[in-house]
Amino acid sequence: MDDMLLMIPGPTSVAPRVLKAMSKNIVNHRSAIFGEILKESSEMMADVFKTDNPAYILTGSGTAAMEAAMANILNRDDKILNVVGGKFGQRFSQIVDAFEGQSKVLDVEWGTGVNPKDIKEILDDDDQIKAISLVHNETSTGVANPIKEIGKIMKNYDALYVVDTVSSLAGDDVEVDKYGIDICVTGSQKCIAAPPGMAAITLSEDAWKVVENTESKTYYLNLKKIRKSGNSNPPETPYTPSVSLMYAMNEALKIIMEEGLDNRILRHKLAAKATRNAINALGLELFPDEDVSSTTVTAVRMPEGISDKQLRGTMRNKYNVELAGGQDHLKGNIFRIGHMGNTTQTELITAISSLEMTMYELGLDVELGSGVASIQKTYLNQ
Amino acid sequence: MDDMLLMIPGPTSVAPRVLKAMSKNIVNHRSAIFGEILKESSEMMADVFKTDNPAYILTGSGTAAMEAAMANILNRDDKILNVVGGKFGQRFSQIVDAFEGQSKVLDVEWGTGVNPKDIKEILDDDDQIKAISLVHNETSTGVANPIKEIGKIMKNYDALYVVDTVSSLAGDDVEVDKYGIDICVTGSQKCIAAPPGMAAITLSEDAWKVVENTESKTYYLNLKKIRKSGNSNPPETPYTPSVSLMYAMNEALKIIMEEGLDNRILRHKLAAKATRNAINALGLELFPDEDVSSTTVTAVRMPEGISDKQLRGTMRNKYNVELAGGQDHLKGNIFRIGHMGNTTQTELITAISSLEMTMYELGLDVELGSGVASIQKTYLNQ
Repeated sequence: MDDMLLMIPGPTSVAPRVLKAMSKNIVNHRSAIFGEILKESSEMMADVFKTDNPAYILTGSGTAAMEAAMANILNRDDKILNVVGGKFGQRFSQIVDAFEGQSKVLDVEWGTGVNPKDIKEILDDDDQIKAISLVHNETSTGVANPIKEIGKIMKNYDALYVVDTVSSLAGDDVEVDKYGIDICVTGSQKCIAAPPGMAAITLSEDAWKVVENTESKTYYLNLKKIRKSGNSNPPETPYTPSVSLMYAMNEALKIIMEEGLDNRILRHKLAAKATRNAINALGLELFPDEDVSSTTVTAVRMPEGISDKQLRGTMRNKYNVELAGGQDHLKGNIFRIGHMGNTTQTELITAISSLEMTMYELGLDVELGSGVASIQKTYLNQ
Repeated sequence: MDDMLLMIPGPTSVAPRVLKAMSKNIVNHRSAIFGEILKESSEMMADVFKTDNPAYILTGSGTAAMEAAMANILNRDDKILNVVGGKFGQRFSQIVDAFEGQSKVLDVEWGTGVNPKDIKEILDDDDQIKAISLVHNETSTGVANPIKEIGKIMKNYDALYVVDTVSSLAGDDVEVDKYGIDICVTGSQKCIAAPPGMAAITLSEDAWKVVENTESKTYYLNLKKIRKSGNSNPPETPYTPSVSLMYAMNEALKIIMEEGLDNRILRHKLAAKATRNAINALGLELFPDEDVSSTTVTAVRMPEGISDKQLRGTMRNKYNVELAGGQDHLKGNIFRIGHMGNTTQTELITAISSLEMTMYELGLDVELGSGVASIQKTYLNQ
């Protein structure tokens, strides 16, 4: 199990020093010693969000942070514009439904990015929209949405700008303050490369004003309580946090600081480019439009006549490389290569080499070594 | 930091083999390999609950499981009887409020146990009560409530019987099926002795019927979804679970199976008895009534004229023993000694010996060695 090369869009492989940090003894979560770790981690987290506002680390999955974002700004029947171009866009809409808001859905064809103009039109037509939700990197389709451009539009409207950067933060360009993002959420197990089970959130002053005037629809994820505890001295969490995962987050964030956030993002961009080049060289087809193809996960159409079990099964069982399949109606129709977090050139070459051999064995037309060569050339010509 | 002896009522010290298990590489949470770990852990969890119904492990704090218990059975204005004799009883009531239920509070003096007759009377008077919530082991006051006796009463009423065993399960008698508990919740970081950040829940058939007829008030903790994913093959969780913490839970549960659940509970009872004997020998006063004093945490009145900072500060800074203080209005008025999870005789003796020396240094009247002797005698005469 330890030999499996994890090339899925999260959870990602975790650096040995993060695993080591995680295995330190448990301390009292209300002690000064833990307060220091929480403070340092939250500050690094805010740096990664590129915001001057505080960031809060939550014990829960990325979905918990998505829920926190919605359940603290919604009154019953409030209207939220949910941009839906994949499974995670859908999730925001379902969360709004669960909390009895009105979800207005902007449907975007899966595999394409949202057109900022479409958002502008809806906001011009409907001044009742309290917030819009957008998934930056739609993990399910491998599409990166133009959060910077949409941020420019959003500055002209009162609606809050809520962005899910679960699978992009620390791997693609996200500048919370500069883009005017009001609520930004992320997860621990994607580009941050910590184990899954923690999430993070940051809010603008405008967003806090709305939160203050809204009765939280959740107890566990009540942001007012989270802020109050987080801003105490030493900082705390309202309920017992995952101490071990906080050690891991702290170490993973330190690795990001050492690498340099901008270097890390460049590394992700290069890995994505190399992967796309390899896919093209192998005669495979990208699922998303190439100009919106994600920096952290590449979605590829399943070759004609090949099943998910054949392709991913061979990769897993024969080559110890774990890829991700498609979700919902994309099941069997695409496969996805994650290249986020700590993924190295060598790992990418291993994955693509294994893909070539798998294609060969499945009787597909493939020039062995051509994908690998594309990766090499991409890195040599950077 | 690794030298601190953690004698707080959770999080507790974690066995080295659990820390080691946790530091294994991350795997795909949708893989057969992870499914096996999840299945095995959930089955052991059900054994610990002593139920034939499935148990589900959640990524979140114990409070998340408390929220799941309430937010999936409540329609707006539904009436819930919350027994409140401490901070965690209060929490259930606050959760009911947050989800717009009607919380009917049965106030119990902090430090005493609830009288089962009082519950019976309220249920006789009011047939609109949909569920009662009870905290088995009120961590904040060191009181264990009579969940078995109340279970006998509850069998005569339709109201669901919801019990928080966060700080008692695997350390005190809890038999979910036998006591007729409809919803039972627990946390990872108390008597189970895994790191914090996971929780577990199990529901009776009656409870599932209510859940099926109730629109979940939470998305993240929607029990219908959790059951659907958990019962799939291989079992899954609806959202990315904390893979590392699941490794840890799996190992911690295996330790419980190896020790034997009943042996473990006896060990806890003996530790509690030894602690109470030591407290009496030292001339200190238990906070709760002795007959309801908890099996997993002993709450002690702060000696006259001594501050929390003096007592716990000396214990921590001079002797590296971390005790817990009081919460809310008990802050400064009590201190709490946790003896849950893996706590050994030796650790108990270390803690009490340090307490004696601390008392001596603070000028209190103490016969050095008398507390330690009480512990020794308790173990020798078991």
